[in-house]
Amino acid sequence: MLRLATPEHQRFIQAASFNASFGGGEANVAVSLANYGLLTEYVTRLPQNDLGQSVIMELRRHNVGTNHIIRGGERLGIYFLETGSVSRPSKVLYDRAHSSIAEIKPGMIDWEKVFSAAEWFHWSGITPAISEGAASVCKEAIETASKKGVIVSCDLNYRKNLWKWGKSAPEVMPELVAGCDIILGNEEDAERVFGIKPDESNYSTREIKASAYESVCRKLKKKFAKAGKVIITLRGSVSADYNTWSGILFDGKKLFEAPVYQITHIVDRVGGGDAFMGGLIYGILTYKGDDQKALNFAVAASCLKHTIHGDFNLVTVAEVEQLMRGDASGRVVR
Amino acid sequence: MLRLATPEHQRFIQAASFNASFGGGEANVAVSLANYGLLTEYVTRLPQNDLGQSVIMELRRHNVGTNHIIRGGERLGIYFLETGSVSRPSKVLYDRAHSSIAEIKPGMIDWEKVFSAAEWFHWSGITPAISEGAASVCKEAIETASKKGVIVSCDLNYRKNLWKWGKSAPEVMPELVAGCDIILGNEEDAERVFGIKPDESNYSTREIKASAYESVCRKLKKKFAKAGKVIITLRGSVSADYNTWSGILFDGKKLFEAPVYQITHIVDRVGGGDAFMGGLIYGILTYKGDDQKALNFAVAASCLKHTIHGDFNLVTVAEVEQLMRGDASGRVVR
Amino acid sequence: MLRLATPEHQRFIQAASFNASFGGGEANVAVSLANYGLLTEYVTRLPQNDLGQSVIMELRRHNVGTNHIIRGGERLGIYFLETGSVSRPSKVLYDRAHSSIAEIKPGMIDWEKVFSAAEWFHWSGITPAISEGAASVCKEAIETASKKGVIVSCDLNYRKNLWKWGKSAPEVMPELVAGCDIILGNEEDAERVFGIKPDESNYSTREIKASAYESVCRKLKKKFAKAGKVIITLRGSVSADYNTWSGILFDGKKLFEAPVYQITHIVDRVGGGDAFMGGLIYGILTYKGDDQKALNFAVAASCLKHTIHGDFNLVTVAEVEQLMRGDASGRVVR
Amino acid sequence: MLRLATPEHQRFIQAASFNASFGGGEANVAVSLANYGLLTEYVTRLPQNDLGQSVIMELRRHNVGTNHIIRGGERLGIYFLETGSVSRPSKVLYDRAHSSIAEIKPGMIDWEKVFSAAEWFHWSGITPAISEGAASVCKEAIETASKKGVIVSCDLNYRKNLWKWGKSAPEVMPELVAGCDIILGNEEDAERVFGIKPDESNYSTREIKASAYESVCRKLKKKFAKAGKVIITLRGSVSADYNTWSGILFDGKKLFEAPVYQITHIVDRVGGGDAFMGGLIYGILTYKGDDQKALNFAVAASCLKHTIHGDFNLVTVAEVEQLMRGDASGRVVR
Amino acid sequence: MLRLATPEHQRFIQAASFNASFGGGEANVAVSLANYGLLTEYVTRLPQNDLGQSVIMELRRHNVGTNHIIRGGERLGIYFLETGSVSRPSKVLYDRAHSSIAEIKPGMIDWEKVFSAAEWFHWSGITPAISEGAASVCKEAIETASKKGVIVSCDLNYRKNLWKWGKSAPEVMPELVAGCDIILGNEEDAERVFGIKPDESNYSTREIKASAYESVCRKLKKKFAKAGKVIITLRGSVSADYNTWSGILFDGKKLFEAPVYQITHIVDRVGGGDAFMGGLIYGILTYKGDDQKALNFAVAASCLKHTIHGDFNLVTVAEVEQLMRGDASGRVVR
Amino acid sequence: MLRLATPEHQRFIQAASFNASFGGGEANVAVSLANYGLLTEYVTRLPQNDLGQSVIMELRRHNVGTNHIIRGGERLGIYFLETGSVSRPSKVLYDRAHSSIAEIKPGMIDWEKVFSAAEWFHWSGITPAISEGAASVCKEAIETASKKGVIVSCDLNYRKNLWKWGKSAPEVMPELVAGCDIILGNEEDAERVFGIKPDESNYSTREIKASAYESVCRKLKKKFAKAGKVIITLRGSVSADYNTWSGILFDGKKLFEAPVYQITHIVDRVGGGDAFMGGLIYGILTYKGDDQKALNFAVAASCLKHTIHGDFNLVTVAEVEQLMRGDASGRVVR
Repeated sequence: MLRLATPEHQRFIQAASFNASFGGGEANVAVSLANYGLLTEYVTRLPQNDLGQSVIMELRRHNVGTNHIIRGGERLGIYFLETGSVSRPSKVLYDRAHSSIAEIKPGMIDWEKVFSAAEWFHWSGITPAISEGAASVCKEAIETASKKGVIVSCDLNYRKNLWKWGKSAPEVMPELVAGCDIILGNEEDAERVFGIKPDESNYSTREIKASAYESVCRKLKKKFAKAGKVIITLRGSVSADYNTWSGILFDGKKLFEAPVYQITHIVDRVGGGDAFMGGLIYGILTYKGDDQKALNFAVAASCLKHTIHGDFNLVTVAEVEQLMRGDASGRVVR
Repeated sequence: MLRLATPEHQRFIQAASFNASFGGGEANVAVSLANYGLLTEYVTRLPQNDLGQSVIMELRRHNVGTNHIIRGGERLGIYFLETGSVSRPSKVLYDRAHSSIAEIKPGMIDWEKVFSAAEWFHWSGITPAISEGAASVCKEAIETASKKGVIVSCDLNYRKNLWKWGKSAPEVMPELVAGCDIILGNEEDAERVFGIKPDESNYSTREIKASAYESVCRKLKKKFAKAGKVIITLRGSVSADYNTWSGILFDGKKLFEAPVYQITHIVDRVGGGDAFMGGLIYGILTYKGDDQKALNFAVAASCLKHTIHGDFNLVTVAEVEQLMRGDASGRVVR
Repeated sequence: MLRLATPEHQRFIQAASFNASFGGGEANVAVSLANYGLLTEYVTRLPQNDLGQSVIMELRRHNVGTNHIIRGGERLGIYFLETGSVSRPSKVLYDRAHSSIAEIKPGMIDWEKVFSAAEWFHWSGITPAISEGAASVCKEAIETASKKGVIVSCDLNYRKNLWKWGKSAPEVMPELVAGCDIILGNEEDAERVFGIKPDESNYSTREIKASAYESVCRKLKKKFAKAGKVIITLRGSVSADYNTWSGILFDGKKLFEAPVYQITHIVDRVGGGDAFMGGLIYGILTYKGDDQKALNFAVAASCLKHTIHGDFNLVTVAEVEQLMRGDASGRVVR
Repeated sequence: MLRLATPEHQRFIQAASFNASFGGGEANVAVSLANYGLLTEYVTRLPQNDLGQSVIMELRRHNVGTNHIIRGGERLGIYFLETGSVSRPSKVLYDRAHSSIAEIKPGMIDWEKVFSAAEWFHWSGITPAISEGAASVCKEAIETASKKGVIVSCDLNYRKNLWKWGKSAPEVMPELVAGCDIILGNEEDAERVFGIKPDESNYSTREIKASAYESVCRKLKKKFAKAGKVIITLRGSVSADYNTWSGILFDGKKLFEAPVYQITHIVDRVGGGDAFMGGLIYGILTYKGDDQKALNFAVAASCLKHTIHGDFNLVTVAEVEQLMRGDASGRVVR
Repeated sequence: MLRLATPEHQRFIQAASFNASFGGGEANVAVSLANYGLLTEYVTRLPQNDLGQSVIMELRRHNVGTNHIIRGGERLGIYFLETGSVSRPSKVLYDRAHSSIAEIKPGMIDWEKVFSAAEWFHWSGITPAISEGAASVCKEAIETASKKGVIVSCDLNYRKNLWKWGKSAPEVMPELVAGCDIILGNEEDAERVFGIKPDESNYSTREIKASAYESVCRKLKKKFAKAGKVIITLRGSVSADYNTWSGILFDGKKLFEAPVYQITHIVDRVGGGDAFMGGLIYGILTYKGDDQKALNFAVAASCLKHTIHGDFNLVTVAEVEQLMRGDASGRVVR
Repeated sequence: MLRLATPEHQRFIQAASFNASFGGGEANVAVSLANYGLLTEYVTRLPQNDLGQSVIMELRRHNVGTNHIIRGGERLGIYFLETGSVSRPSKVLYDRAHSSIAEIKPGMIDWEKVFSAAEWFHWSGITPAISEGAASVCKEAIETASKKGVIVSCDLNYRKNLWKWGKSAPEVMPELVAGCDIILGNEEDAERVFGIKPDESNYSTREIKASAYESVCRKLKKKFAKAGKVIITLRGSVSADYNTWSGILFDGKKLFEAPVYQITHIVDRVGGGDAFMGGLIYGILTYKGDDQKALNFAVAASCLKHTIHGDFNLVTVAEVEQLMRGDASGRVVR
């Protein structure tokens, strides 16, 4: 997906140019994993034009495999981004309808081949939101992956301005999520997709209490039996420039809480959740069995994402681990 | 329509940003006319979002009326532009499918009201190329205009990469063009749309002889009885940076030829034809009866367009007239 | 007025380019009002050159009427802006002497015609500061407006580096302000223009107590009998990047206080007062009789201005109202 | 003087930023001479603000002495530049009225001290055009220089949009030029300032014949007895991007002609004449007695100026001499 | 190698920023081949820092294999580029001493493994110019390649400002070139490296006659028996903006001449020779036995390179073939 | 030294351009002093190329004397800068090996002449870290300065990634520092260079207590008998965007503490220590005997540096004094 962002906090109606980069939920996760040294393949459908080619080149640049990408369709999806400040929110304007991925149909991708040597499959709730075809292909993938014993993870990623193809998230998502081993959501997704709210009622957007979301984890876990882990990212929005950031992980028995980071001068928060997911997958695969460490890696990695322009989280394992050790001082490295 | 152009001759696959401006056939003509001091209204359909709003703001900036623009639909059409150089051609990548104007339907615009005080209606062959709805609305407009005695002009403007909605230009255009008083085309349009070729065969793209196109004019005039004037722009392409530029006008009796300009260091040639049309309408309305002068104004005006970034021809009547008087020296004005 | 701002916190002596935009007290108020959907006309005098033309085009872009602007004079006024940071203040370098508006003379503008269908006239203390002619024309306008029953508002807007034409603000302003129905000032203007200080003495620039300024309101109200409302903006300057922002309104009986906003990451604070005035006029005209709501709208609107580059406050009524409802979280809208 | 140029051939009404640099006739000559290794002092009056300071810093950067610059007055003169292309001329918009130098008065500069160790004094016809004060100070300087045996040179530099202070160039210039040892003009100056035309009449702006201007040299020489050398620059304007460039020098007996350069892809032609003058002074001082070589150096140096952004001619003696030797091939130096 | 180029024809002493890209002789050839769809590996030594990493990412982006790149050493080589105009030449300032590749030693690269599945090995005369180590490693590679039956090609690429490590090109190159099957040089290399001059003496830099270089080919062929083909690029330098471009190929029996292209508005000529080599290798491998077509592909491909920013030739086979068919008109593709 | 910084918080691997400026420890101090009006000479060795020339031009621009700079050697040292944010640290990538200054040898600079009229000599611990030659020349300078009664100051400035030439800082620095009258270090230097730690152990990087460093001062003073004053800068690193900043000065008897500044929105912190040193030297020379005021000037001056792009502290004495008076409100100056 092409991301066209206005420069330096400009409003859309001021922009005489757009900064162009590429991104999108699953691609962002793939870049994170490739950065950490894992082998990844990004599977999608792209148009046979120079913009589609640019996506492939950018993925290659970040060492993400492009072997299973198919070409076809009319256009590359676009999202326009206006970066907010203080009490002015950022705005995302989606222009994804009729994109190559939106017009994908079941059977176009050979999932058997894709998963022939795969260990993990990740998808995000944005994909089934785009079109009926994308939802069907997503289901196809989840089923094939499950059948072949590939771990399946999802990020609920609810977007109210997508989901325009006829069915709603609550109608479509349960069946898909049921096939997942790992479920990630933010503090609002569970409510919007499944109607699952925290028991505690007096929460604010400014301060997010981890404890308030334990009940959400438990309910999700109960609803989706296959899921071994449920994870919730916790973003406190003090302002468009200042967020707090943390997360919790529930393994069915125990609730793990990560430290809370103060992100006081956000550079770019888009892709924060994807950076979390990328960190989480890396953590689970690397710190086998140590869910606390996996969670902490995910939170620290995505905390750093907020300091980087673009959708991709361009950090190294060493940088994440330094922050995990508590060094958030930002002292010059020279 | 949003125009996203790579900066400074960059290829699409190199671009980290796009220069954003707005343009499109009929809008470009309207801006020319408004610049020359004529009252204009631009009629179209735009999405109800910040990009649609930006189009309206930009039109207002150039004093083009926006009173009859309707809002609705999914998206603003986009075209991506890669500016070539020497023997590397410029590339245009259309992303106009499913735009608000593509999904227009007959009845959405109140043409009776639009033409209640209008003197002239101009449309371009790009509009019926976009979709069946756009073609129908175009027909609706031409019929209403004709009925109310409004002069109708068209620019054939053939684009092979549009015309994907089911019918071809040769199937659709004749009926529309038949309602026109003034027909403009470039040296290829007549052949591609109506199969009308010059009699002389040994023409090249590098040197364009005016005489070779007299036969095209005569055939067009014969085919479309209502048309009082047929005009052909003559572009010789020495390279992507260097074109020659002229035009001829046939009034059914006499062929008028304009001087040939050497445009040796092109800044931006997109919109050159629209600038010609804008100049022509101004010339016909202003130099009443003096078709030679009207033609010369059109050619000089559009010659200047090639030195200006963006689709719009930002020149004054005084600047065009100075060039008409033969001063192409480009000496500093201070 | 042309605004030439150094990019990205550069000092004047570092700048190799300037960002160019247009602005100025009354124009900024007009743009706010046009943005909120009100019909406005901006009355001024501009030179007959491309810079003057650019001002008109920019106003048209924002839907501000330009029907009463007269052309003439030597030059467009300029102000250079160096944006500060932390403890380094922003600097404004005025280059407005001998501008077209500075050399305006009484009689040049036909105020009878200007006010023939007007409901409200707003002027700012910057205008009479520029030159004797501008002060006289300002007086002329206030008198004509008053005579025709047009509401008159003013923003005291004291600038010590203007007022160089021979008379001082205390000599000129009282007569002008006496004709006003609405008087706006910041926490320093009343003292500098009329010698009116808060009763409480131990105020700081860092924290501004609303209560301290009630006495200023009362004294202003007493001094200017015609004024139905006196409003004071309250800016606490923690640093060049972080201000607090609020305001009070006194209607002769009751003091209304607005919430205090924490503007922790200022993008551009120039035009903040004008955005307040624009919001206030809109609020008074829209929430008829509800002065608390009008004040709250003014403060919220101008709070948002601090996040937008340029002099103009490019926000919608919906955006202001969302902030008035208390949502300052800046969460991404998508 | 501050130069504010629109980027990349933009028109004034398109510009969202201006490239800022410094320049002006005599300063440009001084920078040329300092670049070639000569000791220079630039004498002017600048405002006591950050823009005035920036001028001084920029002069120091180029090793031009600033010891005799006085500070005072209201503002720094500005000129806005829109760079043309092909048949669209560049435009210069002067905003120099009321600048510090325009408001200079006789006696402000201690010319005795300035010339105490000087060998050469150069002034340009732009200075007396600005204001009566500037003209008087210019006269003061010429007289003091002459008295002290300093060589005096001038560049006639006629600008029709200056000369607005009450007297015309033909009224003021003769007395000033009479004090000069070296007179430089372009192919139009002599006619506009003194009414001296070439004898041959059928000259065009496109091709400039050196022979046609011999008569102009002879008439100038006759009119100004003190002048030992009269030099005319010969610019043929094929288009805004393509000029031919040469010059002739008449020493009262012999006419020297320089080679004609084809400047086919102009980067920035402003300051071309000043670069010529700088080259000429260097040539005369260095190639003592070899006027042909001095002239050739001047033409080659200013030919190179057309390839450099900004008013200043940033070339070395070695680079000019390479071009003088006939190497105009532009092969990469590595 | 990091390329740091001043923007928009700026001189080094004007630059406040540098455009950063990556390039270098053999890398440029590899990118060309990868663009045309061939499998390539680029073998070099890069520092273990973020700049070294960026080189690898950029190569991956263009689909060039990085499997045999070794990491180590102190620094990445840099070259600074100032782009000339008209009669002002471009300047290259090398800062390559002590780079990782300069400090490479024999044995560091496992050439046996590199060539285990290779068909072609290409090196350029820049590599042995850098340091004794680089020359030795180059020799090591040529010997191993020859031993394994890999085709070896070289581009003589003489650079007088390199070759500072103790031996000169004439001392080092003959032994290396003797191992080559294909030898490429420009119109000066043969003379500077081997003292081989054209028989015809009155050649100029402006017009390059193909016939004049037949003798050079014959002498090279005679001197280097292994070489099956000798190729010479022919660049006529009209100015820094306008070059003519062609080439000849001699297969020991027959001289093939390519068409001459007029490159009238050069965007970036650095990498032109490498683009030629890339085209040539592709042509020889693709049009097996048709040397005329291979040569024509090479010349057309590298002609297009002159229109593209950066060292890399970002064109497709289809684009090159269109130019080979004679379409140099640069007409917009839409 | 050339500084190449990625724009707007970009990571090295994202950068398509670098902002270029010049800087380096002692040069930064010299610019500060020149800004405050003191006569300074910067002594170094620069290559004879355009980059070396640019350094000299930039120094001249800031009024720093360049009379004793020698030219020679291979290359200009470079440092690459990636500006961090929040918990992502800034990164400095040194590319200084084999620079002209690194390859300096004793005897190259005529220190007798340099110090003939000097009052103060300042050097930084970065210089001896570069190479053995630089260390030797540094020693040479200190000895000559001491002999001639010139005050000697040093900034310990420990950089772990330099010091690669064979000896370590603890081996080299004591002898050099022993010759100094004034010693400046940051809160880590004393430990890393001399193993001197604060007595109090529970210090953090976030909050720096002045009292904790009194012991460091005493130990330094004791170790280096010649030093009349020991100064330590105190930086608390809350994040990459937010530092606290202060300093202490110990004169052998009394400890002076400066106010602590909250630098909440850092623009550029590189050169902060040099700005402190520049302020300190100015303060000591100006406020003779008032060490508290000298220290306060140093801290306030360098606090302001954090708001300015580039290595140089472009502030005036008046601006520093305003901050010293306690006005950190950043209110617009107009």
